[in-house]
Amino acid sequence: MHGPFLEGKSDHIQKLHNLGIIIITVFIEKPDGKMPEPDEILDFVKNNTDTVMASIPEEDVGQNFTTNESSTMNSAGPGPARRKPRVLLAACGCYSATKFRQICQCFITWSDVKAVLTKEACYFVDASTFPYDSVRLHFDNQQWTVWETRGSSLHIELYTWADIIVIAPMSADTIAKMLGGFCDNLLTTIIRLWDCKKPLYVAPSMDPFMWNNPLTARQLQSLGELGSILITKIGEVTDGEHMTEPAIISEFVKLHYILNRPAE
Amino acid sequence: MHGPFLEGKSDHIQKLHNLGIIIITVFIEKPDGKMPEPDEILDFVKNNTDTVMASIPEEDVGQNFTTNESSTMNSAGPGPARRKPRVLLAACGCYSATKFRQICQCFITWSDVKAVLTKEACYFVDASTFPYDSVRLHFDNQQWTVWETRGSSLHIELYTWADIIVIAPMSADTIAKMLGGFCDNLLTTIIRLWDCKKPLYVAPSMDPFMWNNPLTARQLQSLGELGSILITKIGEVTDGEHMTEPAIISEFVKLHYILNRPAE
Amino acid sequence: MHGPFLEGKSDHIQKLHNLGIIIITVFIEKPDGKMPEPDEILDFVKNNTDTVMASIPEEDVGQNFTTNESSTMNSAGPGPARRKPRVLLAACGCYSATKFRQICQCFITWSDVKAVLTKEACYFVDASTFPYDSVRLHFDNQQWTVWETRGSSLHIELYTWADIIVIAPMSADTIAKMLGGFCDNLLTTIIRLWDCKKPLYVAPSMDPFMWNNPLTARQLQSLGELGSILITKIGEVTDGEHMTEPAIISEFVKLHYILNRPAE
Repeated sequence: MHGPFLEGKSDHIQKLHNLGIIIITVFIEKPDGKMPEPDEILDFVKNNTDTVMASIPEEDVGQNFTTNESSTMNSAGPGPARRKPRVLLAACGCYSATKFRQICQCFITWSDVKAVLTKEACYFVDASTFPYDSVRLHFDNQQWTVWETRGSSLHIELYTWADIIVIAPMSADTIAKMLGGFCDNLLTTIIRLWDCKKPLYVAPSMDPFMWNNPLTARQLQSLGELGSILITKIGEVTDGEHMTEPAIISEFVKLHYILNRPAE
Repeated sequence: MHGPFLEGKSDHIQKLHNLGIIIITVFIEKPDGKMPEPDEILDFVKNNTDTVMASIPEEDVGQNFTTNESSTMNSAGPGPARRKPRVLLAACGCYSATKFRQICQCFITWSDVKAVLTKEACYFVDASTFPYDSVRLHFDNQQWTVWETRGSSLHIELYTWADIIVIAPMSADTIAKMLGGFCDNLLTTIIRLWDCKKPLYVAPSMDPFMWNNPLTARQLQSLGELGSILITKIGEVTDGEHMTEPAIISEFVKLHYILNRPAE
Repeated sequence: MHGPFLEGKSDHIQKLHNLGIIIITVFIEKPDGKMPEPDEILDFVKNNTDTVMASIPEEDVGQNFTTNESSTMNSAGPGPARRKPRVLLAACGCYSATKFRQICQCFITWSDVKAVLTKEACYFVDASTFPYDSVRLHFDNQQWTVWETRGSSLHIELYTWADIIVIAPMSADTIAKMLGGFCDNLLTTIIRLWDCKKPLYVAPSMDPFMWNNPLTARQLQSLGELGSILITKIGEVTDGEHMTEPAIISEFVKLHYILNRPAE
């Protein structure tokens, strides 16, 4: 399977591609060498996914997702309206987590969102400015306190609730934990439950040094072999971190999920 | 080698069995679908281990183990009395650790017990109600403070003291640490010392989601290949966690150890 | 490639040797079974490295390294003076870290030194008695605070600064983290950046139990396959930990680096 934005510019990405793993990558060169703005990238994606868009039934695109609460109100369309997809979004502790609020804002335009932050992510995400009314944040320490007060497991509640899991940004350390089967915080415990029956999207984020370490290619290959869907930016990144832009991540997950979800 | 309670009801357990790994499993179906009571399970074990029991010399069973202190007092039997086996019991941070006190109470009927709790286990074990007079508890933070005050290593002291190591419950996270060679707390440091010269029994505990993740079967296989002895419950578990009952764990370790220990 | 001090006394070291991995080992038997003093070992090394020393150009040995600051002042030699090598020294949490101050003192005789301590190393290193004027110490918690105040990554700064990375002592736990690609503290994050373009020397330290665990040999082999240069003591160690003496580590790194660095 190919991702719609696949660009075979790097050897190890090409190798993953040859294995049949879905790799979603995007790369736009700008004359001044800077990263393109989110809007430019979004246009690029839309222009390059015409064939994908064309194959999506009209009623499945964008605005006609409905919330659970209002689903009966919208049933006067060409068929029964589906409820909005439930997306469990998570951030790890790396610089790109400063964009996590922006990622959430992209996803709430088309889905119900709950979010999980690792302890290290909290160094980069300012939870006090978060849109709590639309996105419920969950933290590592709640894993234990919820159990104490309710006798139930927060990780099972969140995992069962979600249709889709998206980890953006995913740090090199959390990749290592996932591959080893570790479950030492709320996020990795949720990942440890994952049995490939729900899509799990991963947008790795690393600085260029770490990204170019040969270990990275091996780890991404192992992630793909476990069945996760990688959303990576390829090519040279000399400034900042190696994560795909928020708008791209959201747009890709939406399209990919709609195209691949089982018929009702 | 077969464990006395082997039931080949699940594919990956069967695969382990084929590899010759000792897997101790037990499964009793009750008409109402609930877990059997400890006493029912104990009866089941006793009824199914007649051949094992028959092969144990009379003086080796149960009450005639003696403590170190009193061993000279009991030497008037059919042969020199052995001292009680020394069991190092450990619990990890999962729901089944709420049964750790019960596990200790089973073991002290036939052995000398010292216990190790990980930091996460302390969320589930109420140390204040523990029978301190018969079981000495050790905690992660003691690993450093003992060194500071005595200049010796607590993990070496405990490892050297023990005849048998039993980890019940063992969490998915500690399994991952053991397989990777990690040693970041008192328990995993003790495990890292383990050179297969003493029996190490492992009773994994997971919720059904985690247990059914394909990663679990791979990890259990690796644990067996390292030489550890798995004590697992098989079959469908829809309610609660996937750990064998305390009385079964204790009874099995006792029988298995007696049958396999070197002659004096 | 052979290290100058290779002694094929142990099977798994021999196996590494056969793979062509550089293993630097030293072993001197003393009649009373005790560890030799640093000076004795240093003499041993010097006596056994004549061929190495003979092949080093006169101006490269010892005292004629210059600091950055004074390099113009020393340019009246047989050629342009090189600046002193920059060595990033790190210690993990094991007993041998009590020798870390001594290790630093050996290295500052011929190099510029910055040092990294893990949280666990701080149990063994008395930072208050450290020669701060010649060695700058960095701690795990600075990884986040430096980012907060300067917006830059301390791990990239230190990695970029260094010509050579030396981890002495390296604990079993940090070996496991390195092999798994974990990066959960300042040291392991620096290691995760490592792309084999700079030499990375590792002096493992373990007690005899841990060292003799079969897992250790497997891990050392994997470390070598990643390209790191092992500095290990071989043979029986019954007393204390399994780390090569500070003076040997420093002397070997100096010789090995000089012989292998690219021509200017």
